[in-house]
Amino acid sequence: MPERKRQTPDKGRPANPAPRGRPPRRERNFAAIRGGEDTEFRRRILIAAAEIFAERGFAAASIDEVAKRLDATKGLVYHRYRSKGELLTDVCEDGLDRLTARLDEIAGRREPAITRLTEAAAFHAGQVIGEIALHRTLAEVTSFAASSGRSDEEARAVAALTARRQAYDAIFTALIDDAADQRDLPAGRDTRMLGRIFIGALDAPLHWPPETLSELAEKRDLIARQLAYFAIRGAGASDATLMAEFSR
Amino acid sequence: MPERKRQTPDKGRPANPAPRGRPPRRERNFAAIRGGEDTEFRRRILIAAAEIFAERGFAAASIDEVAKRLDATKGLVYHRYRSKGELLTDVCEDGLDRLTARLDEIAGRREPAITRLTEAAAFHAGQVIGEIALHRTLAEVTSFAASSGRSDEEARAVAALTARRQAYDAIFTALIDDAADQRDLPAGRDTRMLGRIFIGALDAPLHWPPETLSELAEKRDLIARQLAYFAIRGAGASDATLMAEFSR
Repeated sequence: MPERKRQTPDKGRPANPAPRGRPPRRERNFAAIRGGEDTEFRRRILIAAAEIFAERGFAAASIDEVAKRLDATKGLVYHRYRSKGELLTDVCEDGLDRLTARLDEIAGRREPAITRLTEAAAFHAGQVIGEIALHRTLAEVTSFAASSGRSDEEARAVAALTARRQAYDAIFTALIDDAADQRDLPAGRDTRMLGRIFIGALDAPLHWPPETLSELAEKRDLIARQLAYFAIRGAGASDATLMAEFSR
Repeated sequence: MPERKRQTPDKGRPANPAPRGRPPRRERNFAAIRGGEDTEFRRRILIAAAEIFAERGFAAASIDEVAKRLDATKGLVYHRYRSKGELLTDVCEDGLDRLTARLDEIAGRREPAITRLTEAAAFHAGQVIGEIALHRTLAEVTSFAASSGRSDEEARAVAALTARRQAYDAIFTALIDDAADQRDLPAGRDTRMLGRIFIGALDAPLHWPPETLSELAEKRDLIARQLAYFAIRGAGASDATLMAEFSR
């Protein structure tokens, strides 16, 4: 197993000068929140929570474990999230916000659809490799096979997140449609199914073992391009089109 | 959510005639085991266990839940499996036995490598759609991000299962290599990475939402061929080759 990266609080810099030595850890963490490091702390919670959800699955994950990984007290996390369902929702919403913002930007460019699709594919594959815990969490949420053991509130949150993820995936399908209209992909096919297969291929790293992923982290952009090439070719692009798109 | 298929014991046929009405359920189930329905009961346990593992994740799954889904007593399952780790191992080993036996048969045929690769790809994709719970369980095991909370025995079992799954995946990579040697796929590439991407594309249905999967169950072979086509084209097959392979 490769050594895991852990986010630990920056113990060397308490938010306020401490005349009689450093305050106990609990006090220091509250001081950090009061000191306006709110956004950064939220980000750290979300990263740790995605890791715990990805490793343990939602059902077995707990806020305790998230706090432990952060080296923070449980209360600090409960201060923001009343339940792990809320925490899961925030992890996924934050992730989907960032993914969707970037994908919208790429899809909105004034370029041929095939060029935007290629960029979008490489972007998504790179994100999966780079933020594997987030993407495993998103995958778990959107493929929940049953709602057993879930409250109504959780079921509603899962439905809303699934709809958002499907809207994100639909951007790929729309780009495939546009590329077909522009004759850079074959026309007249069921692109709803093709879109699902396309995004599934880009999600391949979800199942790679941890050693493979850490080994590939530094070659992230290269592997992302390779995944994009496979998917664009799989979707039917000609070798001339591939040559044009991947020689940029 | 679509209605879930549940395996319930065939209550209408107790193993032995019951002169004074049917025995209580517990007694009937033991009677079934004594009556030699061992293999069939094991299969039912494995199906139910794969469903529970896939829905809840390993960490949150319990033998209790498996027994409940089977409408059997906990003791009946513990009679065979001392821990859920053993149960997970049996689910995965049984699944990998069946997958590997069939894949070996396809890979060993006297046909061009590209033909065997096409058949192997369609077979695997069909299995993923048809036995989604097993495949989600296998995917969870082989992509375990950390061994936290796992005993040494469980960690060893996970390592052994991961190795078996990698051996299964390696059959695809070997077929890609052979197809490249036979000039039906481009030569001179890093086929280790390509193999990972190839199998990842075929695993796409792992993340499809339950509605999509149940909607597609009856079109399983068609979708499996579509996934295989995408993957074979993604891997670099020419349109002439694709035409030959997919017009059979």
